[in-house]
Amino acid sequence: MNIIVDLMGSDKGDEELLVGALKAKEEYGIDLTLVGNEKTILDYLNKTNYNSKGISIVNASETITNEDNPVMAIRKKKESSMVIAANLLKEGKGDGVISTGNTGALLASGLFIVGRIKGIDRAAISAPYPTKKGFSIMLDSGANADCKPEYLLQFAKMGSIYAEKLLGVKNPKVGLVNIGSEQGKGNKLTLETYDLLKNSDVNFYGNIESRELTSGEVDVFVCDGFTGNIILKNTEGVAMYIFSILKGKFMKNMRTKLAALLLKKELGEIKELMDYREYGGAPILGVKKPLFKAHGSSDSTAFKNGIKQLIDFIEKDIIKDIQDTL
Amino acid sequence: MNIIVDLMGSDKGDEELLVGALKAKEEYGIDLTLVGNEKTILDYLNKTNYNSKGISIVNASETITNEDNPVMAIRKKKESSMVIAANLLKEGKGDGVISTGNTGALLASGLFIVGRIKGIDRAAISAPYPTKKGFSIMLDSGANADCKPEYLLQFAKMGSIYAEKLLGVKNPKVGLVNIGSEQGKGNKLTLETYDLLKNSDVNFYGNIESRELTSGEVDVFVCDGFTGNIILKNTEGVAMYIFSILKGKFMKNMRTKLAALLLKKELGEIKELMDYREYGGAPILGVKKPLFKAHGSSDSTAFKNGIKQLIDFIEKDIIKDIQDTL
Repeated sequence: MNIIVDLMGSDKGDEELLVGALKAKEEYGIDLTLVGNEKTILDYLNKTNYNSKGISIVNASETITNEDNPVMAIRKKKESSMVIAANLLKEGKGDGVISTGNTGALLASGLFIVGRIKGIDRAAISAPYPTKKGFSIMLDSGANADCKPEYLLQFAKMGSIYAEKLLGVKNPKVGLVNIGSEQGKGNKLTLETYDLLKNSDVNFYGNIESRELTSGEVDVFVCDGFTGNIILKNTEGVAMYIFSILKGKFMKNMRTKLAALLLKKELGEIKELMDYREYGGAPILGVKKPLFKAHGSSDSTAFKNGIKQLIDFIEKDIIKDIQDTL
Repeated sequence: MNIIVDLMGSDKGDEELLVGALKAKEEYGIDLTLVGNEKTILDYLNKTNYNSKGISIVNASETITNEDNPVMAIRKKKESSMVIAANLLKEGKGDGVISTGNTGALLASGLFIVGRIKGIDRAAISAPYPTKKGFSIMLDSGANADCKPEYLLQFAKMGSIYAEKLLGVKNPKVGLVNIGSEQGKGNKLTLETYDLLKNSDVNFYGNIESRELTSGEVDVFVCDGFTGNIILKNTEGVAMYIFSILKGKFMKNMRTKLAALLLKKELGEIKELMDYREYGGAPILGVKKPLFKAHGSSDSTAFKNGIKQLIDFIEKDIIKDIQDTL
């Protein structure tokens, strides 16, 4: 298997991602196509005396930043790592792409370079969300800020297939993220989506309030990308906030410091559970080939985990299932 | 001061709210106008030999439920506790109303019975949100599922006045809840609102991502009521989730149980901080008289705290400031 890695656009720099990609290569026995600044890559490989067997390097002379307009960037920055990576994927020169870069631009490169699956209007980022039972799939987690009800129906269908293959759940339950559990609650989008989902062949659970997402009651939850992104980042923020308060309390005196010491292992486990880095990446569902978005502030471990998930996604051939169903 | 209390529509029953209201009467030296089932109220007062000095009782023969259509309920259920309470407020037979009932209906009773402040298109629920520096004000937290940019500008203005008086911050910073910190990120609503806020006399901080809300960087943050409600309930859900995992870890063995015992006080403090019940209530800003929404699952303590905030709100005469400014 050959994974195409976009090394540019990370908050932590190209080298951090390179380290993660090389770790993944060693652990999972894959080949790598590294797209980025050739000099940076070669310097690192030479410095560490890295055996470059199974590694191809493709130089990119431009970077798409978070400030770039997504569609414009894809059209104009032909020499950017992201556009080159998407073109390599399209031409079959690798099995999947992973990138930490500008989410909108990655989506646009999926739609305009790799191409949409027939029957899908919009592609959606499908992120894992931690729950009491393991995790659920949330889509869209940030690709489409404004959505129509039909998009959410398509997300529900794609999410069901993904969850069935990824989580091994037969006929996954799909919830609609909403501000009340009763039918008749919501904004214009969710009110109309409710009716669509109810009359579809999706295993529709009904509305689910954001308070209940961690319950694991549903396997998939759908929302527009604005709401999904708000939820993901809020979850991260609240978890960090609670941990920072905990830390403050633990440092108060000898008694609390002793308790913290006794709990060291358990606190580490909880932190890990809430840490986006453990999840690593999320597929952009709806495009013809495997395209993964990793968190912009991924460190090498997070990035390695993202590559692991991409490998899993490719091996399970989830895209074929979506194409066959839709 | 006379507080009008809507005793109906709570998840925990009328008596729970009655207990909270009576506690508030004793602690804060207020008079009460209790609106609810007269028999339930009298039975409780008799059972406890309660001295009914300073207490008026107004019987209500109907209840507005969470399933009711808000506007229809206000129009048709004239004998409901909520409609009666709003009418009493309008007629000056009390200084403020508090209710745990149907949020939409409470908003509608504010708009159609109590009346809107001139210059305000929509009233907004303004909830406190816990941060590293204390708390910020979030509006709208659930009254208006669909919003226009002008509404958010009005929320920003009202929120600034409220925060200045409540938190004692001069010229409070107002953030726009969004899915990216850079200008140019967002959905249609936030993109348009950004421009409006930038060109207004509000002390505009710019976009704020939901990950940063707990930082306390801004004093007020504005969003549509759908997003606000998603954030509030997600925050509650994530906090409960982390505490439930913590609890599980603490019960694992003798070592962890000992640590938990050592930390009992500190864990209680953190839980309290994240507990909606400590905050109690939120004003519906934009109506002509003090109208407070308390959480539907408020227990007597939460409800008492809500009444305390209502008293504070009345004493600070925040509505007059909003009227003078807008």
